[in-house]
Amino acid sequence: MKQTAAVLGGDMRQVYLARLLLEDGIDAVTWGLERGDGPNPVPLHQALEAGLLILPLPVCRAGSLNLPLTDTALSAEQLWPRLRYDQLLLGGMTGELAPRLMADFGLTLLDYYDREETQVANAVPTAEGAIQLAMEATEETIHGSRCLVVGYGRIGKLLAERLQALGASVAVAARSYRDLAWIAAKGYEGLATAGLAGKLGRFDLIFNTVPAPLFDAERLEEMAKDCLLLDLASAPGGADPAVAKRAGRRVLCAPGLPGRVAPRSAAKAIRDSIYHILEERGEPI
Amino acid sequence: MKQTAAVLGGDMRQVYLARLLLEDGIDAVTWGLERGDGPNPVPLHQALEAGLLILPLPVCRAGSLNLPLTDTALSAEQLWPRLRYDQLLLGGMTGELAPRLMADFGLTLLDYYDREETQVANAVPTAEGAIQLAMEATEETIHGSRCLVVGYGRIGKLLAERLQALGASVAVAARSYRDLAWIAAKGYEGLATAGLAGKLGRFDLIFNTVPAPLFDAERLEEMAKDCLLLDLASAPGGADPAVAKRAGRRVLCAPGLPGRVAPRSAAKAIRDSIYHILEERGEPI
Amino acid sequence: MKQTAAVLGGDMRQVYLARLLLEDGIDAVTWGLERGDGPNPVPLHQALEAGLLILPLPVCRAGSLNLPLTDTALSAEQLWPRLRYDQLLLGGMTGELAPRLMADFGLTLLDYYDREETQVANAVPTAEGAIQLAMEATEETIHGSRCLVVGYGRIGKLLAERLQALGASVAVAARSYRDLAWIAAKGYEGLATAGLAGKLGRFDLIFNTVPAPLFDAERLEEMAKDCLLLDLASAPGGADPAVAKRAGRRVLCAPGLPGRVAPRSAAKAIRDSIYHILEERGEPI
Amino acid sequence: MKQTAAVLGGDMRQVYLARLLLEDGIDAVTWGLERGDGPNPVPLHQALEAGLLILPLPVCRAGSLNLPLTDTALSAEQLWPRLRYDQLLLGGMTGELAPRLMADFGLTLLDYYDREETQVANAVPTAEGAIQLAMEATEETIHGSRCLVVGYGRIGKLLAERLQALGASVAVAARSYRDLAWIAAKGYEGLATAGLAGKLGRFDLIFNTVPAPLFDAERLEEMAKDCLLLDLASAPGGADPAVAKRAGRRVLCAPGLPGRVAPRSAAKAIRDSIYHILEERGEPI
Repeated sequence: MKQTAAVLGGDMRQVYLARLLLEDGIDAVTWGLERGDGPNPVPLHQALEAGLLILPLPVCRAGSLNLPLTDTALSAEQLWPRLRYDQLLLGGMTGELAPRLMADFGLTLLDYYDREETQVANAVPTAEGAIQLAMEATEETIHGSRCLVVGYGRIGKLLAERLQALGASVAVAARSYRDLAWIAAKGYEGLATAGLAGKLGRFDLIFNTVPAPLFDAERLEEMAKDCLLLDLASAPGGADPAVAKRAGRRVLCAPGLPGRVAPRSAAKAIRDSIYHILEERGEPI
Repeated sequence: MKQTAAVLGGDMRQVYLARLLLEDGIDAVTWGLERGDGPNPVPLHQALEAGLLILPLPVCRAGSLNLPLTDTALSAEQLWPRLRYDQLLLGGMTGELAPRLMADFGLTLLDYYDREETQVANAVPTAEGAIQLAMEATEETIHGSRCLVVGYGRIGKLLAERLQALGASVAVAARSYRDLAWIAAKGYEGLATAGLAGKLGRFDLIFNTVPAPLFDAERLEEMAKDCLLLDLASAPGGADPAVAKRAGRRVLCAPGLPGRVAPRSAAKAIRDSIYHILEERGEPI
Repeated sequence: MKQTAAVLGGDMRQVYLARLLLEDGIDAVTWGLERGDGPNPVPLHQALEAGLLILPLPVCRAGSLNLPLTDTALSAEQLWPRLRYDQLLLGGMTGELAPRLMADFGLTLLDYYDREETQVANAVPTAEGAIQLAMEATEETIHGSRCLVVGYGRIGKLLAERLQALGASVAVAARSYRDLAWIAAKGYEGLATAGLAGKLGRFDLIFNTVPAPLFDAERLEEMAKDCLLLDLASAPGGADPAVAKRAGRRVLCAPGLPGRVAPRSAAKAIRDSIYHILEERGEPI
Repeated sequence: MKQTAAVLGGDMRQVYLARLLLEDGIDAVTWGLERGDGPNPVPLHQALEAGLLILPLPVCRAGSLNLPLTDTALSAEQLWPRLRYDQLLLGGMTGELAPRLMADFGLTLLDYYDREETQVANAVPTAEGAIQLAMEATEETIHGSRCLVVGYGRIGKLLAERLQALGASVAVAARSYRDLAWIAAKGYEGLATAGLAGKLGRFDLIFNTVPAPLFDAERLEEMAKDCLLLDLASAPGGADPAVAKRAGRRVLCAPGLPGRVAPRSAAKAIRDSIYHILEERGEPI
């Protein structure tokens, strides 16, 4: 990259990202990462001059830039007018923001998170993090436990594989015949997601990856008293913690695992994603 | 199934399929499977009265029904007029035949092979068969060998996994960033399919699953003298055997493995597919 | 078991052990497990009447019975005279105690921990616990990390396998040609324990299972700055934490993992061991 | 090695061994390997001048040197007097021969096969070969099959692991509590070898590795009609083929797999063993 890259706010993933860029010989500066000891800190006005601006994941929270590692606040609406159309903005989970920035300010904002290879790369720390949480929250080994993984997307695939390798007996719930064929090909027990009723009582650990309210009071009560439900689905998740509490069942909500358990690995996924974006735009890295 | 199912011709897969149906309590008869000892053989006119007619995979070869296990020939064009619109015809790789039968004769022909769960189920015997062939064709163990799998579809996925489990060091070539992210997540070395030139010399075994002429004379010459290229792609495959011979490299074409190495497993996949079709049509099994 | 079994002191493993015995229909009571909510608590004099006395692991600490879950203290020397020669005593890591009790008091004390199947069963939670600690102590995933396992005994074997399954690249250091042949057969990189000098710099995680001072100042300094050394060997372990601190390297001592991370699994191993002992003595369970 | 190494007879393993020695820059010649195209063939009298003489595995058959790849015969008793006490003789499965050669002729004969690391290295091609045979002899995939491995020694360990990785459900029969603990730790179903009666009916594939007559008429009849028993134990094996035939059950005797299915891998194991022997004798390689 001939131009300077400025990492603007974010959490430990952005701190590691800045370090990784520097390791690759890129001229990177940071702003808003003080508590994470972000490298090459510069004043805001200087950061805003960079050709490439790397924004947090997600970019904003409640109208302000997402700045958990600094005491300063920065209103998003005050930030955009200070940027130039010839800068490239990269952010995570940009959603509606990107078309609005283009329409209102002529700014180009691309998403470094919403790429399939990034999602896959993030599924690894999510699967590992889920295993770590399960190990921490139980008095037994994964080895010998009876696990159910609900959903066979990226996370479900990598998680089921790891649980089996650690010696668990693994069942996976999925909806399509295709997924159930894969589940059989991998040697797991396959269950139809729509037909889980009456089948939950024999599991020690249930990992939910489906963002749908599958675990209502009836399903929760069906779980064994000692069973732990790890809810990996993004909010509102698959089970309501309040309902679980009333049912006397253990539910652990664990969204956003990559940033928590392996920020450096998550940062590598973001770095690769950024390089792919630049490559596709024909810009030298 | 209340109605009779007649298995009409085909290879050992159809023989096992008929047996599996009988094991499930279905009233099944066969015709044209003598050399495979097809169960409940009946004369053709009786077989044609069945409510469900199960045709070969592929249905026809050179204008005749595909009948490798009998000495009788049956012209396809003479068969169709003898069938009724209230019968259900199931066949494999039906392609253009299905719409034509509907248009010309009002017959309903559905494909038991062209379903994603069937393709997945068939990928297992294909992957195993490829390993069996590689074991048979080499003087060394898979363990310790350096393998390249070209293509990361169904077969590539299951094959790479098995090779790694047997102790090979595995590289996989794929095209998309997404596939390369999966390849990294699985712990294989990833290579870009477009950039294989100059990188083939270090492999002992190359498994091609991509139906494209990737292995031209130049690529073949780049392979080590002892290297074996197993071409699993359907015809015309990834390498021309004549070119390989001139280059002095070993290429083994191995399409259609499931029917050859594990016909009973392949038959189970067809049986499941037939049940799914009937289920989706609301017919009792 | 016709007789009553009394679990006398110990940690959470003994609490779970008592519960497991009750689940098997055995008449079990406990004493000295209040803080762990030991089931069927009875006064000491009543516990001492049981035919089978299950003591802690290890039995004593500093001359007293090992009682971390109660506020009461019980001097070992005051306990032994109160026991009878027709009772069977079982304890963990009994060492010199067993022959002394027999000589001095005519008491039979057998070790439920010093059996090969129990050591194997305990190696599973140790291996899992090591992985949990490594996950907790690092900012990266096990996946993609370069790991060295030093020693190829029970723990080394199970640990290397799990690390590889989680996607790490695994090297194992061992001494004998035999172990190195196994290491090759398993597909790990093999290193000679005696020749580790100069080879430590490339690892992210080092797991030591050898109870010998392999990691002196020189070896520690050779480790990468970010490398974590997890010392699983029993005291005094493979590295001196003070020396590590001076060298600026991270060493985490983690002996006794099964009781910490998976007491219920560890309790199952003890239960099985007790049943095997009784079976070998011809006593009904 | 400063001295010349002469490979004298043997099968394809010795042919590959000679090639491997040459690849390592060793001055190697061969005699008696014509049909295998042994490299650097020399007349017998010249071969016998080498400092290191590498004999077949096993050394003799029926009083003659083991020479399957040549038409010449060489009586062992005529060979020994022609050798010198300052030559080093290495052979496979030397048994009683070594002490006799020392006593009668002052010759030093060491065994390159009877070393634990060589046995382990040979267990890999044996396990792979067993899988290859099972694939060839059945109409179903290993995936989804129910396998029993009898014996948990070197071969049993590596075989069980591979079968599980290929998607079989695996049970292992062993005798000691220790082995059964390992079997549990690996996630297989454990069976007591002494208690197999009445438990064989549910398996599709049985691999015997125990050289004891475990499979008598009663056990064989208990096996399912379609079950295949692969007998890997050295003669007389675990089942009498004649008895199996009467019982109408399929038994495949498969001793000596490494030399048959992967002679080059087997040769590598012998080469490593030879280097270890020389190293231990303080001779440069």
